[in-house]
Amino acid sequence: MKNIVILGSTGSIGRQTLAVIRSLPGRFNVTGLAAGKNWRLLADQIREFQPQAAVLSGQSELSLLRAELAPAKKPELGLGREGMEALASMSEADLIVVAVTGTSGIFPTIAALRAGKDIALANKETMVAAGQMVTALSAQKQASIYPVDSEHSAVWQCLNGNNLDEVEKIILTASGGPFRGLSAKDMESVTVEMALRHPNWNMGRKVTIDSATLMNKGLEVIEAKWLFGVDYSQIEVVVHPQSIIHSAVEYKDGSIIAQMGTPDMRLPIQYALTYPERMNGAVPRLKMTDLKGLTFEAPDVERFPSLQLAFEAGRIGGTMPAVMNAANEEAVDSFLKGVLSFKNIPVAVEGVMLAHKTVAMPDLEDIVEADLRAREMAEQIIKNLT
Amino acid sequence: MKNIVILGSTGSIGRQTLAVIRSLPGRFNVTGLAAGKNWRLLADQIREFQPQAAVLSGQSELSLLRAELAPAKKPELGLGREGMEALASMSEADLIVVAVTGTSGIFPTIAALRAGKDIALANKETMVAAGQMVTALSAQKQASIYPVDSEHSAVWQCLNGNNLDEVEKIILTASGGPFRGLSAKDMESVTVEMALRHPNWNMGRKVTIDSATLMNKGLEVIEAKWLFGVDYSQIEVVVHPQSIIHSAVEYKDGSIIAQMGTPDMRLPIQYALTYPERMNGAVPRLKMTDLKGLTFEAPDVERFPSLQLAFEAGRIGGTMPAVMNAANEEAVDSFLKGVLSFKNIPVAVEGVMLAHKTVAMPDLEDIVEADLRAREMAEQIIKNLT
Repeated sequence: MKNIVILGSTGSIGRQTLAVIRSLPGRFNVTGLAAGKNWRLLADQIREFQPQAAVLSGQSELSLLRAELAPAKKPELGLGREGMEALASMSEADLIVVAVTGTSGIFPTIAALRAGKDIALANKETMVAAGQMVTALSAQKQASIYPVDSEHSAVWQCLNGNNLDEVEKIILTASGGPFRGLSAKDMESVTVEMALRHPNWNMGRKVTIDSATLMNKGLEVIEAKWLFGVDYSQIEVVVHPQSIIHSAVEYKDGSIIAQMGTPDMRLPIQYALTYPERMNGAVPRLKMTDLKGLTFEAPDVERFPSLQLAFEAGRIGGTMPAVMNAANEEAVDSFLKGVLSFKNIPVAVEGVMLAHKTVAMPDLEDIVEADLRAREMAEQIIKNLT
Repeated sequence: MKNIVILGSTGSIGRQTLAVIRSLPGRFNVTGLAAGKNWRLLADQIREFQPQAAVLSGQSELSLLRAELAPAKKPELGLGREGMEALASMSEADLIVVAVTGTSGIFPTIAALRAGKDIALANKETMVAAGQMVTALSAQKQASIYPVDSEHSAVWQCLNGNNLDEVEKIILTASGGPFRGLSAKDMESVTVEMALRHPNWNMGRKVTIDSATLMNKGLEVIEAKWLFGVDYSQIEVVVHPQSIIHSAVEYKDGSIIAQMGTPDMRLPIQYALTYPERMNGAVPRLKMTDLKGLTFEAPDVERFPSLQLAFEAGRIGGTMPAVMNAANEEAVDSFLKGVLSFKNIPVAVEGVMLAHKTVAMPDLEDIVEADLRAREMAEQIIKNLT
């Protein structure tokens, strides 16, 4: 039995992680669960999986949870960042699933690695904002980072048994999002509702918008750089609207190894949980003869400038990726609130990047500081844009 | 420097093997070369690669070669099956490339394995006719068999770093050959010239006809069974007309690992020569964004009965695959001579299979005997059909 802690258990990835655990009875113990504000769902999850400890972000939600669970045998309850860091390093845990969204994922990730815990990382922002520090810590503590993103899981699987020195390039596939076929002019009138309608994947709101701008792929480019230790020149993004090939690795001899499957997040989640084993689980199988045809095209950097912004931020390095990511979080938030237009999301991000003075070898404090300043700057720029 | 012996050096695979060696200077010594009758080309190859020994099948061709090479410093010259077996087991050799066509490939393959030599196997017939014996010998002598077929090389690459017990199935892709879209009626008037026009691959005549009947894929199914130790129920053939995905492996968790590349035999040849390394070689790279679209369909077993015949022969086992293979060689030969019609190739093969009484656990003598009897029976059946 492997003891699992899930940070962000009520979100999309968290719920699917629990679905995978449910489908493989007798394999996993859920040792800890952490959520943001959704105390009702967390209460249900606690009743089903009986963790030793649970954490919520808000004090009032924690009180409601406490009341809801009484008089049943309660797990130990914790609060906020401190509670999450305690969960991430609890001595019983074998694997920490970091499925919280946003930059706040950095803190429990670092806490887990410091405690020598293997992590299954679904939080892109951690690697984007603090990739250098996190990979160094992972190497130092000999704690593994297993990717949960479908693309990085695919690359990880395609590297199995091969030599990293023989990699020519990593090919990250992108669905292209809901606006792949839209003209530059039509993109000016994109609504929140339209942007939330992703063609292939069922994901959270933030990542769905990032898919529509291609910033999601940009964040994945930076994540891939740190996870697999390649240069940015070795990472290529290919638009593949059917989302069947989840990514691929091209080797020096010209051979390309690709990973395919149904577009279902439970597949990469399960692989991260069961690695190095593969198990018959809950994921529907892909029947190749049912496929209508797989197509590939280069991403349109004119209509989707976010992808290039991410490559630029990655190449600059230091605090710049954290700044770009923070600015993007603010811009997407403003878009979801109906304040900022879709087209102005990358404009705001670029504005914040232009205003930032990069710190080349940042520590965690520098990153947190840069993130905060970027959000302030984003707020101001967004105000000017609307 | 790895010392390489090439059996069948003037054929399609043999010439491409030498092209790979030429493109990787300083990596390989050509220690021995064997050909059938093409003494002129063999003479050129001897001048270029300076092997220690060379072999031809025919006495008169050997005399012509001897005269051609005088008074230059000659390699040691040998004749026929005996000469080939001597090359296959020469003490200097590190790897024997078995690229002769037809059943005669069995003898040098067995000689090489008995001498504990690793082999790169491009001869399908060996595994089809004597798969059980050859894999047992390979295990006993701890001599590896590296596949050179693009499909089996793909499967081999997709198994890298994975556990054979976790394989759900092996997916062999097939181009479908030149007659994939032809109606049953139009297939009655197929000519030799039409059958030799393969859409994607540049191969020898025999294998090109086998591609047109799908018998080539049938032989590969039996080869895959022995190379990878799976059941026939775990092997699926999928028609993929673009020949970009060269084959794939589906794992128990639903994840499919596929190998892709340009349809160029030098890629699997090079991988077998350089394994476990991958090197920058002569093979043109695949640009995914240049692909027009990849499609997949189930093979039509009505119009292409050869594939089912091979599955049947494989499941029956014993001498039956050898018999099927011998009958097919005779039938293809008669077709290429303009004697047998394209449609009657599988009819002749099935007739020979129906007349054969299987020996369940054959030794090499049983296999050779069954092969001979099958050819006699094929001759008779072909006479009745024409």
